[in-house]
Amino acid sequence: MSATGLPPDFLSRLDGLLGPGGLLTDEADCAPYGIDWRRLFPGRAAAVARPSSTGQVASVVGLCREAGVALVPQGGHTGLAGGATPDASGRQVVLSLARMNAVRAVDPVGLTMEVEAGCVVQAAQAAAEAAGRLFPVSYGAEGSAMVGGMIATNAGGINVLRYGMTRSLVLGLEVVLADGGVVDGLRALRKDNAGYDWKQLFIGSEGTLGIVTAAVLRLVPRPRYTETALLAVPDPEAALRILAAAQDSLGDTIQAFELISRCAFDLLERYAGLSGPLPPSPWCILLEAGSSLSGLRDAVEATLGEALERGDAVDGVFAESKAQAAGLWSLRERITECEAHQGKSVKHDVSVPIPAIPAFLEAADRALAEGAPGTVPNVFGHMGDGNLHYNVLVGPEHDSAAINRLVHDVVDRFAGSISAEHGIGQYRVDELARRRRPEEMALAQRLKRALDPDGLLNPGKVLRV
Amino acid sequence: MSATGLPPDFLSRLDGLLGPGGLLTDEADCAPYGIDWRRLFPGRAAAVARPSSTGQVASVVGLCREAGVALVPQGGHTGLAGGATPDASGRQVVLSLARMNAVRAVDPVGLTMEVEAGCVVQAAQAAAEAAGRLFPVSYGAEGSAMVGGMIATNAGGINVLRYGMTRSLVLGLEVVLADGGVVDGLRALRKDNAGYDWKQLFIGSEGTLGIVTAAVLRLVPRPRYTETALLAVPDPEAALRILAAAQDSLGDTIQAFELISRCAFDLLERYAGLSGPLPPSPWCILLEAGSSLSGLRDAVEATLGEALERGDAVDGVFAESKAQAAGLWSLRERITECEAHQGKSVKHDVSVPIPAIPAFLEAADRALAEGAPGTVPNVFGHMGDGNLHYNVLVGPEHDSAAINRLVHDVVDRFAGSISAEHGIGQYRVDELARRRRPEEMALAQRLKRALDPDGLLNPGKVLRV
Repeated sequence: MSATGLPPDFLSRLDGLLGPGGLLTDEADCAPYGIDWRRLFPGRAAAVARPSSTGQVASVVGLCREAGVALVPQGGHTGLAGGATPDASGRQVVLSLARMNAVRAVDPVGLTMEVEAGCVVQAAQAAAEAAGRLFPVSYGAEGSAMVGGMIATNAGGINVLRYGMTRSLVLGLEVVLADGGVVDGLRALRKDNAGYDWKQLFIGSEGTLGIVTAAVLRLVPRPRYTETALLAVPDPEAALRILAAAQDSLGDTIQAFELISRCAFDLLERYAGLSGPLPPSPWCILLEAGSSLSGLRDAVEATLGEALERGDAVDGVFAESKAQAAGLWSLRERITECEAHQGKSVKHDVSVPIPAIPAFLEAADRALAEGAPGTVPNVFGHMGDGNLHYNVLVGPEHDSAAINRLVHDVVDRFAGSISAEHGIGQYRVDELARRRRPEEMALAQRLKRALDPDGLLNPGKVLRV
Repeated sequence: MSATGLPPDFLSRLDGLLGPGGLLTDEADCAPYGIDWRRLFPGRAAAVARPSSTGQVASVVGLCREAGVALVPQGGHTGLAGGATPDASGRQVVLSLARMNAVRAVDPVGLTMEVEAGCVVQAAQAAAEAAGRLFPVSYGAEGSAMVGGMIATNAGGINVLRYGMTRSLVLGLEVVLADGGVVDGLRALRKDNAGYDWKQLFIGSEGTLGIVTAAVLRLVPRPRYTETALLAVPDPEAALRILAAAQDSLGDTIQAFELISRCAFDLLERYAGLSGPLPPSPWCILLEAGSSLSGLRDAVEATLGEALERGDAVDGVFAESKAQAAGLWSLRERITECEAHQGKSVKHDVSVPIPAIPAFLEAADRALAEGAPGTVPNVFGHMGDGNLHYNVLVGPEHDSAAINRLVHDVVDRFAGSISAEHGIGQYRVDELARRRRPEEMALAQRLKRALDPDGLLNPGKVLRV
């Protein structure tokens, strides 16, 4: 072993495989790859391999296996759970997919698109739009996040209600296995029941079972009409009644049904000077519907009118232009930033069965008031798919891990998930192991051993071997 | 071993586990479980275990493992690939899930439903309808097929274009593993990225990796308006242009886009006396769209009117009532029956990238004309999702396996699938092994070994160990 903790000729062999510009070893060059953007998971990369082809990825993985060196696959490095950040040992190599960024093909009739793992999500969206179609996965980090990371984390975002998570939009996958073998399943087929659908294993497993190098994604038709509205509601029960009524009257034209608490609006006003178009109310709903049919506005107006008549909504406003719609969305999107200005917060990305949301909120608020007095819940999230960002504003005296456990205990009581969309990474490894049933963890271990017997793919993420 | 080829006390121990009515051993009682409904795969069950609970399933699997006896899970036994039929050895035990048929819960707001594996698909649909929602998986066998088999085969059907395959409608799963362990993942969550999504492995793996005992299914809002139309088109290229235009104008309101050849209409007329509402044409399209919005009819009329003006369609008719819509659908649904009256046919359930459909049809027709003169292609299927039933009417002089290979060779040239929705079962095992890349087959073998090391779960299906 050299001073780096790596076998002596490892880096020169890696350099030879990757060619000019393919390997970073300088500490300053490597530093940004070693720490996540929230700076919660400081690590250090021994080197950064930047392959430009699937063949190079396979060679790098093969060499690392031979040398017993661990690899951490990395895309845009925008994750919230430290899933793409190396540990602090300085002995892990980051495998950046950033140079593999081509959009290889777009098929507007078959509604498919083939892209490489390092393609930025926004670039994939733009390629779909240029062909008159929509790639509907959309989330805050889409300007930096890459398709490989989106798939490895099964990213969610604002359109899950209508279009599902990333998983439901992946038709084909090319993967490099832990032994350096390449499995090419880049089929552009909407239906394919020929044998095990092995690609499902790699979606959402955060680079611990294999490395995604390219994918065939599913596109959808672009809705011709979009309606966006903000509604003031007295409580989460009323929000739930509006959701149920909207499912009857608007069906699956509903694209987003976001719940935003008064606390979040207070933060928006204080730190971003955004007051919102409605007088203060305990809760708001941001609803968006889309359709190819021109009757959308009338149907949304009727649905919201009935909610006002019933008293489930106390006030409401429609976006009358794209700019107004963007303004309403910016309220939703700037909450996290304002939360950061406020000070320290303990974040949760949980989901519960949708009808249980009001009871969950009540129980979590009560648990916090009792177990962590002085904290303030700042709740917002994708109510329509059961996913709440139940964040907690805390002072220096509060213990983040204790608050995590307290909130997750309540999630468990409602048979929910402690990671609805952000994944496990290194952040939630212990919480997951503590809470998932032993049979599920044993099954996960079995899959990990079968696909990465030497434990060299993103070790320490999702589960400890 | 006894005369049955089973260990001497095996059946009495099995009987003890299952209680009264739980075990069939009489040859006449077992016979129907031993052969598929098309009578293509004659087998013989040593016994039929009919557990009434997940605990009993686990006990049966545990006992079989201890005794080294193979198990063949079976639901409604309606599959087309022999996936649920035992072999002819008389040493395999059929595990029928039919007694586990409860609908445990329906949640119309959260849009979920928990059902047991033996629940008939139609009963699950009815439970959703009673709650004002839709369970959208729909296929010919739904009156007998069971939820467990639907999941084990990742069933497709007529609504895939809008709602996806079964996989996209499974939120949670309970599975009994090969070692008799139970993994309970019956979470009613729309979003859950907490750890590996292991349930995906069991969906579509045809009972070879584990036994599905219960599931949480996703429901969708019921469309308020449905429009069904039949269009006469000159050729598949014109059909493709209509599909592309409909994606622009009707978006994802399109639920079905079926292609039916003149040959199929001829069979319908000859053997069912059904003439259809349009004069004969080379091809027809059966289009169905659904929406919550009242403007659907106008939009569909405009789209089809433009197709007529462009000459992509030469004639067309709308269903003006539910009865008329059912009449149009019965044309589509009775093709298989009329094909059987005609005589012997060699069936294919293939998919290709959608824009390649016209070229695929031309190439397959040419290959047949050259390689199997005297045969007649009878083509119909789900054009909107790329899945064609490219069936071939043959005489006694033709070799079915050779025709399979001939058609599948053409599928391979278009990077398609030799089993779009029916699965592999025992029918396509060798064709799959011949055609899939060795890396994919090796990965499948690795998963099989990891989850069923003794090879006792549905041996010989999907892949040979």
